[in-house]
Amino acid sequence: MKGLWLENKQLTFGSDLPEPSLEQDDTLIKVSLAGICSTDLEMVKGYYPFTGIPGHEFVGVVESAPGNPIWEGKRVVGTISIWCGQCQPCREGRTGHCGNRRTLGIQNYNGVFAEFTKLPVSNLVEVPESVPDEMAVFTEPLAAALQILEQVQIKPSDRVYVVGAGRLGILIAQVLKLTGCDLTVVVRRPEPAELLRKMGIRSSFGKELGDKSADVVVEVTGSAEGFATSRRLLRSAGTLVLKSTFAGEVSVNLSSLVVDEIHLIGSRCGPFEPALRLMASGQVDLQPLIQANYSLEDGLQAFEEAAKPGRLKVLIDMGLKR
Amino acid sequence: MKGLWLENKQLTFGSDLPEPSLEQDDTLIKVSLAGICSTDLEMVKGYYPFTGIPGHEFVGVVESAPGNPIWEGKRVVGTISIWCGQCQPCREGRTGHCGNRRTLGIQNYNGVFAEFTKLPVSNLVEVPESVPDEMAVFTEPLAAALQILEQVQIKPSDRVYVVGAGRLGILIAQVLKLTGCDLTVVVRRPEPAELLRKMGIRSSFGKELGDKSADVVVEVTGSAEGFATSRRLLRSAGTLVLKSTFAGEVSVNLSSLVVDEIHLIGSRCGPFEPALRLMASGQVDLQPLIQANYSLEDGLQAFEEAAKPGRLKVLIDMGLKR
Repeated sequence: MKGLWLENKQLTFGSDLPEPSLEQDDTLIKVSLAGICSTDLEMVKGYYPFTGIPGHEFVGVVESAPGNPIWEGKRVVGTISIWCGQCQPCREGRTGHCGNRRTLGIQNYNGVFAEFTKLPVSNLVEVPESVPDEMAVFTEPLAAALQILEQVQIKPSDRVYVVGAGRLGILIAQVLKLTGCDLTVVVRRPEPAELLRKMGIRSSFGKELGDKSADVVVEVTGSAEGFATSRRLLRSAGTLVLKSTFAGEVSVNLSSLVVDEIHLIGSRCGPFEPALRLMASGQVDLQPLIQANYSLEDGLQAFEEAAKPGRLKVLIDMGLKR
Repeated sequence: MKGLWLENKQLTFGSDLPEPSLEQDDTLIKVSLAGICSTDLEMVKGYYPFTGIPGHEFVGVVESAPGNPIWEGKRVVGTISIWCGQCQPCREGRTGHCGNRRTLGIQNYNGVFAEFTKLPVSNLVEVPESVPDEMAVFTEPLAAALQILEQVQIKPSDRVYVVGAGRLGILIAQVLKLTGCDLTVVVRRPEPAELLRKMGIRSSFGKELGDKSADVVVEVTGSAEGFATSRRLLRSAGTLVLKSTFAGEVSVNLSSLVVDEIHLIGSRCGPFEPALRLMASGQVDLQPLIQANYSLEDGLQAFEEAAKPGRLKVLIDMGLKR
């Protein structure tokens, strides 16, 4: 099959990659549309060691499901942690934190930048008819944004800052706006500010925001500078959500976290069903987030485009050039 | 009056220190008994710049309360933040995080290692008759231990590790034991292990505890090594309470906090009333924590004793040598 292959930081297009071989309870999925995420770009830069087909944001159609034929023909999205079911976290229901987990297109498991991918049936979520592929492909990052609301009670009266206005930052802002909170996105460039304005979301370059003025800050830059800005803006006894991974270690004044009684919360993957509900009801506006569509054959160009500063979501459409 | 004085990292005994001059709503308190805390020892080492009378753990009797004579003669303990009532945190009821706060014996406010101290009447809490001075002097650190339960829901089914078995760590262990949780204190020396055993609290040198085996870890060492141990022992999506301040910055793998979805919570001062309730009902055992009693005149010796490794609570008793 056709697909992208990552090995030794080299991304290549291959037309004779082996199709996924199914294990028990696996389903074979024909990928319709896939999205490039910052994690994919960082893998290509070599931040994570991975050999195989990258990609974890997708929507597709179940081609075959030997153990569960009821799924065949269904349009699906899929959660990205493949868990063992045996370890302590799995037995406690925290399968996303499985100690033996593999991760779709990220860790020991081929991903979705290919004609076909596979997932255990327990990872599949059916897409409602009213949600088109161009929306459904955002399910995984939108779920990651919603995970903040699974972990933190954002009150309507809270003042909330989102630090970072990239692909994920804008999704987070849309989700947090639904709470009625007093929301500001801290941007570094005018372009996302303009996009946010059209979405009815306030933005700021940060300097005019007062020290310790936020009840909740969501850090989405994954940089030491963004972390410092977030700490400056957060009030005592406030909540700092870390939503991006950081390259390397960061020097942190832990004493100030103690003295200011800060709640710091790491946040990763989230629930798919509510993400699909918000799409189906039109409560999020995803169309403006799509930067460009590329065919699978032009996948390397798609990655180049996605890596440019300020680019929004670049999609790989398996139906193009067929 | 007699008292201890800290200036340029030099602690001295003085017999002619000026008595506190009262501002509006202040009360003059004759100190009965005071405790030496790690923060006091760190101030003497120069970790915090402070000039004046140190000390913030005390029990005493109100000598005069010009604006509130009803308090005169009452036996009291006192919360340590002197707040302005005007700033945003104060107006939101978070007076402990007042932006203009002074702190008894720690920051811009003379403390309790003296014959007399002063506090605004709003900082005073009356001590129940059934609680003797030797217990009441523990109110501030016991309240700090209870603050963990104000911030985190510890479930009876949780496995909880307290990393660090100093003065505060043992108080924290006693408080957490009340929840019925599966509690272990990580010690570095055999002496606290023996003391904890007598209190019915399990201890461990840590190496035999499994990685990621705790639902909640309370870090009480304030060292980078203790932080690393705490992270090793905490399960994914677990809660790490930071209860001690750290000297300088610590290099932290923030990405691992994100991937493991860790809740990290800084914790400082706590509520006095429940601390006094636990003492009055005999639910905590404070007597074994008292290492030694010194007179105010022997205050420098008291500090020397408290600074020795493994020493528990050293008290300064103003009634000795009178």
